[in-house]
Amino acid sequence: MPPSLNVQIAWGDCDEQGIVFYPNYFYWMDSAFQALLRRAGLSLRLIRNDLGAVGLPLVEARAHFVAAASYDEALTIDAAVSHWGRTSFQVGYQARRNDELVFEGHEARVWAVRRPDNSVGPAPIPVRFRDMLSAAALS
Amino acid sequence: MPPSLNVQIAWGDCDEQGIVFYPNYFYWMDSAFQALLRRAGLSLRLIRNDLGAVGLPLVEARAHFVAAASYDEALTIDAAVSHWGRTSFQVGYQARRNDELVFEGHEARVWAVRRPDNSVGPAPIPVRFRDMLSAAALS
Amino acid sequence: MPPSLNVQIAWGDCDEQGIVFYPNYFYWMDSAFQALLRRAGLSLRLIRNDLGAVGLPLVEARAHFVAAASYDEALTIDAAVSHWGRTSFQVGYQARRNDELVFEGHEARVWAVRRPDNSVGPAPIPVRFRDMLSAAALS
Amino acid sequence: MPPSLNVQIAWGDCDEQGIVFYPNYFYWMDSAFQALLRRAGLSLRLIRNDLGAVGLPLVEARAHFVAAASYDEALTIDAAVSHWGRTSFQVGYQARRNDELVFEGHEARVWAVRRPDNSVGPAPIPVRFRDMLSAAALS
Repeated sequence: MPPSLNVQIAWGDCDEQGIVFYPNYFYWMDSAFQALLRRAGLSLRLIRNDLGAVGLPLVEARAHFVAAASYDEALTIDAAVSHWGRTSFQVGYQARRNDELVFEGHEARVWAVRRPDNSVGPAPIPVRFRDMLSAAALS
Repeated sequence: MPPSLNVQIAWGDCDEQGIVFYPNYFYWMDSAFQALLRRAGLSLRLIRNDLGAVGLPLVEARAHFVAAASYDEALTIDAAVSHWGRTSFQVGYQARRNDELVFEGHEARVWAVRRPDNSVGPAPIPVRFRDMLSAAALS
Repeated sequence: MPPSLNVQIAWGDCDEQGIVFYPNYFYWMDSAFQALLRRAGLSLRLIRNDLGAVGLPLVEARAHFVAAASYDEALTIDAAVSHWGRTSFQVGYQARRNDELVFEGHEARVWAVRRPDNSVGPAPIPVRFRDMLSAAALS
Repeated sequence: MPPSLNVQIAWGDCDEQGIVFYPNYFYWMDSAFQALLRRAGLSLRLIRNDLGAVGLPLVEARAHFVAAASYDEALTIDAAVSHWGRTSFQVGYQARRNDELVFEGHEARVWAVRRPDNSVGPAPIPVRFRDMLSAAALS
């Protein structure tokens, strides 16, 4: 399976020490998640318009930085759902430069809907969404 | 009149040479524009909900970079409408570090509405918007 | 004690759902860390030039998102060292909108030096750095 | 000739209106410039270490936004030197979605060196740099 995302690190992604400014790693994690959705035939717009969620808001994000990465290097980022809960799920990420692990991360996301009282809160994840995303990870 | 925006340049705003990565200057120009709207009692949400525009999309942006700026320095950014057209207007920006000019820029923005055929295009700028924004620049 | 950082959420910090795009929270955590250094009379440049480190690279960052935040809202971010190790330390962050917790996060950072063989790795944190940073948190 | 840069617009690149937050266009212009350097066998590091410049600082950047672009769309960005001066040069950019022009932009960059008195200023562009970059645009 090809990686979820290919990143070419740009000049502007790096700080004065010449290494990636770390919030960019989370930007790439999010981008890899969007790519995972796309591979599943999904998108946040489809999820909002067709599947009834208002979004998949994050409740937690974390990353462990293993090796520094720098300008002009290429990273491949793999994303896959690592845990399905009832109303939330976890996505795991691994970023490599060639075969070397650069960082790994996790996001916890919620299936959020608008309730009758207009508040937004978690709701059970539809089977269809789970099946589509799981199939994408296997393809 | 106080500046539209005070910026404290952060580590992550700078590149490997230790100077501001230039797209950030445009981010601050946009932020200074939002601050100008706020001073006028406006916001993009109010403009969309109350004044009937779908937004104020940019048609042009440019900046002239006069001096390099770096990590931990403070900039003040002044914003003011520099030209009113019928369906568009220009905003001028000047950024200073103490009294030294760091950059100046311009944005051209359009009063964009959704037409009956659902397309989006320019429309005459409401007098109310023009008056509110002009008063803010004088206050 | 005043907060480490005051953030005015800008239009460009938000995504299509009108809420903060989450990597920005990590950008603000990093900015709050720089502000904490500044309050201690330190900066990454001083640390590199005077204290002998090549930097304070992150080994881990995580955040827990409690409430959504949006355009034009103001956040205050408090930062303080939450744990001192021998060669690394943890910084804790809490962001509030008025009195409401919006997110909390942690960073683990390493005191990194260049070794005689030119490789970069962890080294014991100087007492002077620890004392300066601890004093800043109390002031 | 392939485009200088392929961009897949990410969720986080868009604002509340669901269109690209415009400073990102300048980020992609800069990334396309780095890609142009790479195609020429150059990089900012090589330029600094081998060709004697301290960098290629921007003196001006501007863009004209022709069509809105959004999340999940693909852009191709072409970059080429549009004018050679003695100590500065202009780079032109065109971004397309399929065959439709989305934006075009220009950067003016300076060949900057450190002078004997330690100040930084413009110097004549080396023939070697000009030849390498011109050849890349033709390949």
